[in-house]
Amino acid sequence: MDSIMIIENVTILTMNNEKEIIENGVVVINGNRIIDVGNNSIKNNYKNVDRIIDGNDGILIPGMINCHTHASMVPFRSLADDYKDRLKRYLFPLEQKLVDEKLVYIGAKYAIAEMLLGGVTTFCDMYYFEDEVAKAAKELNIRGILCETIINFPAPDAKESFGGLEYSKAFIKKWKGDSLITPGIAPHAPYTNSDESLIAAYKLSKEYDVPLTMHVAEMDYEAEKYANEYGITPVQYLDKLGVLDDNFISAHSILVNDDDIEILKSKNVKVSHNIGANAKGAKGVAPIIKMKERGIDIGLGTDGPMSGNTLDIITQMSLVGKIHKLSSNDRTVLPSIEILEMATIGGAKVLSMADEIGSIEIGKKADLVLIETESVNMQPIYDYYSTIVYSANPSNVDTVIVDGNIVVNNKKLVSSEFRKIRSELIELKDDIDKIAKIL
Amino acid sequence: MDSIMIIENVTILTMNNEKEIIENGVVVINGNRIIDVGNNSIKNNYKNVDRIIDGNDGILIPGMINCHTHASMVPFRSLADDYKDRLKRYLFPLEQKLVDEKLVYIGAKYAIAEMLLGGVTTFCDMYYFEDEVAKAAKELNIRGILCETIINFPAPDAKESFGGLEYSKAFIKKWKGDSLITPGIAPHAPYTNSDESLIAAYKLSKEYDVPLTMHVAEMDYEAEKYANEYGITPVQYLDKLGVLDDNFISAHSILVNDDDIEILKSKNVKVSHNIGANAKGAKGVAPIIKMKERGIDIGLGTDGPMSGNTLDIITQMSLVGKIHKLSSNDRTVLPSIEILEMATIGGAKVLSMADEIGSIEIGKKADLVLIETESVNMQPIYDYYSTIVYSANPSNVDTVIVDGNIVVNNKKLVSSEFRKIRSELIELKDDIDKIAKIL
Ligand SMILES: [Zn+2]
Ligand SMILES: [Zn+2]
Repeated sequence: MDSIMIIENVTILTMNNEKEIIENGVVVINGNRIIDVGNNSIKNNYKNVDRIIDGNDGILIPGMINCHTHASMVPFRSLADDYKDRLKRYLFPLEQKLVDEKLVYIGAKYAIAEMLLGGVTTFCDMYYFEDEVAKAAKELNIRGILCETIINFPAPDAKESFGGLEYSKAFIKKWKGDSLITPGIAPHAPYTNSDESLIAAYKLSKEYDVPLTMHVAEMDYEAEKYANEYGITPVQYLDKLGVLDDNFISAHSILVNDDDIEILKSKNVKVSHNIGANAKGAKGVAPIIKMKERGIDIGLGTDGPMSGNTLDIITQMSLVGKIHKLSSNDRTVLPSIEILEMATIGGAKVLSMADEIGSIEIGKKADLVLIETESVNMQPIYDYYSTIVYSANPSNVDTVIVDGNIVVNNKKLVSSEFRKIRSELIELKDDIDKIAKIL
Repeated sequence: MDSIMIIENVTILTMNNEKEIIENGVVVINGNRIIDVGNNSIKNNYKNVDRIIDGNDGILIPGMINCHTHASMVPFRSLADDYKDRLKRYLFPLEQKLVDEKLVYIGAKYAIAEMLLGGVTTFCDMYYFEDEVAKAAKELNIRGILCETIINFPAPDAKESFGGLEYSKAFIKKWKGDSLITPGIAPHAPYTNSDESLIAAYKLSKEYDVPLTMHVAEMDYEAEKYANEYGITPVQYLDKLGVLDDNFISAHSILVNDDDIEILKSKNVKVSHNIGANAKGAKGVAPIIKMKERGIDIGLGTDGPMSGNTLDIITQMSLVGKIHKLSSNDRTVLPSIEILEMATIGGAKVLSMADEIGSIEIGKKADLVLIETESVNMQPIYDYYSTIVYSANPSNVDTVIVDGNIVVNNKKLVSSEFRKIRSELIELKDDIDKIAKIL
């Protein structure tokens, strides 16, 4: 038997099928698994407890899942935010000049610290040099679905056209079966890849049965391209290519029509909804209410910190509720419980990991977040879901456990490395700023 | 000479006309006034300094201004959030049964604590028993524009029709000239007041030259009423009544057309934009970009904590940017500097207090907020405005000064009373919950 840890004196939002809420609840962890969940009385069944965490009347939720980000882009956060053509004018040239193993590692490490402090225990990443992201994730102990980018122009980590494919293959072989890292593959978008490279990426995902994630139906010019050239939508184009299946995680999915939703459902494609970045970038509101009604699995994502500026999922939840109520002209749509569902078990389904994470149930991995209710913004509480969705902010996250390990304690990262990573990030920022000023 | 306090080692976003930014800046306070603003060298001009605050590389901004709230409604926060008819089914019956001096005092005190901790140094309030709100504001040392509600059905603090008028008059006489409290008057909305009561409220505001604030053009049924009965808009109705002038603070102003905007401008009416509550309540997006272009003064508000769930202005700023970019389909509208402007000097203009507050300038009242840049979400910084608008959250507020007094220090309220108010709020919540469950 591994070491036993007990969390007590919490209200547990289990997010199981019955959406059980357990007041004065207790969770028992053995090694990296939850072995018991119940009310205060179950404590007596466990002797030789190694550690007891007093939840101090906080709310215990499953670790939150960030279904789409580019963690290592955090060094670019807040650069040229309100510019029309920032992607082409700033980001692409800066990436060509600056993105290397070191930037990816520092960026990932900083972003992972931020995600953990905000209660994110699993993230799905799309970027370059994912091996560096994996190293950072292992060091700070976060769960990562890490997908190397495939793109049809020279990328920072591969000179040849869709050269990320060889990197990907090696990366998948190296990490498949790891306790924290799930390797995957990320063709950047339909319009930045040739059919050949999309099909090759799909085959690789099939061969190793790993996730494939892609930006889909995000951009006006993307939708226009497929409409003008083929008279169809991006989703229909991907379907005709034959690359949609249940390993496919479609990020954004804003410009989709009813036919597209039927295709996504019939191919069991999953969707990451990234409302903060989509709003800030003026891209539109993905029709997730329709998708939910059709039974499509939906999780929440932040997109890269250059797009949405935050990496936590608590901030996304409030935005999801507010923007969908506003755009539906109906204050009753997406009740808070459904929003927390997307942030936890919904995200787990999107990543095909719902057997292991996403709810507080016996047998699942111990990925848990304790949200304190001491702070002024957290009271009163009539509805736990509503309080978490509309009142909480990332600073209310008190304790975070990933795979049975305490990684955030009393609002501080357990790892002592944060100061160092912070100064490395600020050094990077100075380099970037110098180049950006002459762009 | 009063006591001298110096804040050093900060980046000052002055929000003056030139929008000067002073890096490695210093602010000198004498009593309740700013007497000097400059770079590090000005420190040498001051001997006998009573207190030095080391800003630790933080960002110093003018105190933020919440132009529209109902602070004392915080005991109802998170109750029945996703219900269609919550105003009529829950809120009005609960207010009739429960709102008394005690609830208003406890609610106000709790809400003021929350506002101060989030960097709000001035708030404009509309509720009942405003004398209790004034008491709470004085005790915690916040600036308040406090407006007693006038409404044409029996109100908790007055039995007769628009009885709030007598209360208002006494309240205005009592507080006019106070250093922190500006008394005003608040007819609830056009559709909840008779013409007679609206005119009486307007005359009172004129007689004493105090602010008048009202919910205007907020509700679909309000706009329909005036369209059906008179063929005009709510703004046009108020204009015909003759109650619009430069003391008028119009809250919400969502359902306004181009003619209405011309009326608001010609009467020098001010607008409080409350996007968080407006979005969560599915009410629509006020056309503030058009209003700004016409030169109308616009500030930001949270609305009551039952509507928007938060009381700080930092959360509003990010929403303002994201939702207006989204609804304009243009990522370049409302750059961050304009959003921070609405949160500070814009709000001061809305409250007719721009001579005294809203920017960091010599001669103004010392209402200041220090935002730390140590926390993980605050780095890197390429653009101070962007960082505050899109990266910061209320927990980054480190120090708050109102009228020369430190009220928040190292993220904690200086007043020792918070624990007591917190348990009183939770007691109130239990009473409310019992009644709400049988509604
Ligand atoms: Zn992305
Ligand atoms: Zn209001």
